[in-house]
Amino acid sequence: MTAPRRLVPVSLGDRSYDICIGAGLLDDPSCLRPWLVGREVCLVTNQTLAPVYLPRLRALLPGEARVTEFVMEDGERFKNFETLSALLETLLRARHSRATTLVAVGGGVVGDLTGFAAAIYQRGVAFVQVPTTLLAQVDSSIGGKTAVNHPLGKNMIGAFHQPRSVLIDTDCLQSLPERELSAGLAEVVKYGAMDDGAFFAWLEAHMGALRARDPEALGEAIAQSCQAKARVVAADEREGGARALLNFGHTFGHAIETHTGYGPWLHGEAVGAGMVLAADLSARLGMLSWEAAARLKALVAAAGLPVAPPSEMTPDRFLELMALDKKVLDGRLRLILLTALGQGVIKEGVPLASLQETLARGASLCQSPR
Amino acid sequence: MTAPRRLVPVSLGDRSYDICIGAGLLDDPSCLRPWLVGREVCLVTNQTLAPVYLPRLRALLPGEARVTEFVMEDGERFKNFETLSALLETLLRARHSRATTLVAVGGGVVGDLTGFAAAIYQRGVAFVQVPTTLLAQVDSSIGGKTAVNHPLGKNMIGAFHQPRSVLIDTDCLQSLPERELSAGLAEVVKYGAMDDGAFFAWLEAHMGALRARDPEALGEAIAQSCQAKARVVAADEREGGARALLNFGHTFGHAIETHTGYGPWLHGEAVGAGMVLAADLSARLGMLSWEAAARLKALVAAAGLPVAPPSEMTPDRFLELMALDKKVLDGRLRLILLTALGQGVIKEGVPLASLQETLARGASLCQSPR
Repeated sequence: MTAPRRLVPVSLGDRSYDICIGAGLLDDPSCLRPWLVGREVCLVTNQTLAPVYLPRLRALLPGEARVTEFVMEDGERFKNFETLSALLETLLRARHSRATTLVAVGGGVVGDLTGFAAAIYQRGVAFVQVPTTLLAQVDSSIGGKTAVNHPLGKNMIGAFHQPRSVLIDTDCLQSLPERELSAGLAEVVKYGAMDDGAFFAWLEAHMGALRARDPEALGEAIAQSCQAKARVVAADEREGGARALLNFGHTFGHAIETHTGYGPWLHGEAVGAGMVLAADLSARLGMLSWEAAARLKALVAAAGLPVAPPSEMTPDRFLELMALDKKVLDGRLRLILLTALGQGVIKEGVPLASLQETLARGASLCQSPR
Repeated sequence: MTAPRRLVPVSLGDRSYDICIGAGLLDDPSCLRPWLVGREVCLVTNQTLAPVYLPRLRALLPGEARVTEFVMEDGERFKNFETLSALLETLLRARHSRATTLVAVGGGVVGDLTGFAAAIYQRGVAFVQVPTTLLAQVDSSIGGKTAVNHPLGKNMIGAFHQPRSVLIDTDCLQSLPERELSAGLAEVVKYGAMDDGAFFAWLEAHMGALRARDPEALGEAIAQSCQAKARVVAADEREGGARALLNFGHTFGHAIETHTGYGPWLHGEAVGAGMVLAADLSARLGMLSWEAAARLKALVAAAGLPVAPPSEMTPDRFLELMALDKKVLDGRLRLILLTALGQGVIKEGVPLASLQETLARGASLCQSPR
């Protein structure tokens, strides 16, 4: 029996592909096979997920497949050059040719690292994303951005490399730890805030159902999020313009992650606090009403996310870390801000004084100073 | 005073660029500036070339440029993950943004490594090739193939990333060691053999002038070679079909380089012997006359190149190393052979016995067995 599914197309010319979303998708033996290039397959996952997913994925492969498995340690701090190098060496030792297909099974760490390995193994091989966290399902598995971290900055080394397909089984979310569910909801809230006011309002009404893992609500939120991301990526594959809007909350978020050293704060948690900072700055600059900023903060809180950066992070520390961020082009301060709930804009030349005021606000972010 | 130049266009849609060839090109202050994206520039070269070229390159940069320099050790064995990592770290420490431009000054090692760094630094930045060896001028600087070596195979990790421009000053060749000149001529001979019978005949007539570094002959040979490569690359940027013809002699050559450990044999020397092996196999299979095979061998010898693999390399050792080569797709033996001088073909399913006979011939390669 095949469960009902939704297909979200990502239109990128000869690199187009579909995101396939469905409950129980990974029980369907036909879901993966169309995307395998040759007979060689490398399944990549982490130590936590391997016992759960490797047997299921093996069952999806044709009998004649020559299968290699690479199990990395679990955690953002292993999304680095050393793990990448180990994966590449595994492929070389197993003599995978250019006709191999890499299958990334896990969250954004596994997906980003596997995608980058696929981008540079023999100058580029095929890969398929099987995201198992909400964050990966609505964000990192879509759009072809792949990377590893460097001690000097997050995602600093990477490539644009599109997957052949993204397979999302919403049942994976039933066993996801609460904190990771909330972290994924940060990106869902982001799509509403920067792209779709109606979706933002829907999220305000359904945040309880989402946190209770109601399958219908999750399916709808994932499909809406994937559509929003696919729309932006199709318009701007290599982040020359509109795609930068997807970084709403992320410049601040990356600074928080770099400061804390990748790990103590989940990516989505940092983005949650980052969106609150961006909304405060938007209101401070008169671009957004304080009421809208407060609604954004309330929705971030309802998602179970932090609404302020770590208390020990000074404005100066933020500015130091943001200077290395790649959204800061050629020395000019460039941030994604809001003009309404559902309307993000790229703002060049943000006044430093306003930014410093926002960074100094702590728990009172998004409250009108009047 | 500006010396006369030739422009060879490389047509790749929005990634098109020109190869600019001229004697004294690097004395012209206007040759580099049009290709710089922002104010940040990183000059990359090796320890041997740095004293000669860094002062000249600095003189080509605008006064407001923020310049970082990266000087790697000289040699193919440093075209590896460690040097790549050091270059990326240099860029991060100097806080280069996505608007930086990397300038590769040197041979294929510097160019391949710098190009790969440009491909993956912040998911891709601009770079310019300033090739200073004949090999780099006629081959590795053109076409966007970038890579580093791995102990398990040459060029196994890399990306396709096109330069913004290739600047060829033929005066660089006057100080090139004799062995490196011959190594570059291997690729020049390759273009004649696989693509242009008239150019092959021209090379038979002018090999003496080329080895005597006659500027006119060198200019003509470089321009013809760049045109041949640009033609093939434009037709097949990512090596799905015709571009594989550029690998004439290279599958054997890579096996020789892997066996000897990168260094004792220059790349061009290995390609020279590799072309003789390929010509012998072509004649053995009845695709090419033994007379034509002998002419190929004679031209390789006239270029000052070896015409047989290292004597200790057994056929079995060759086959072991070739199995890892990326031209061997999905387990099927696939080689570039000749049907005439000037006509390369992709040959699938080469009989193993014929290949083994060729690999066992040693000094008598390309002589008719009758």
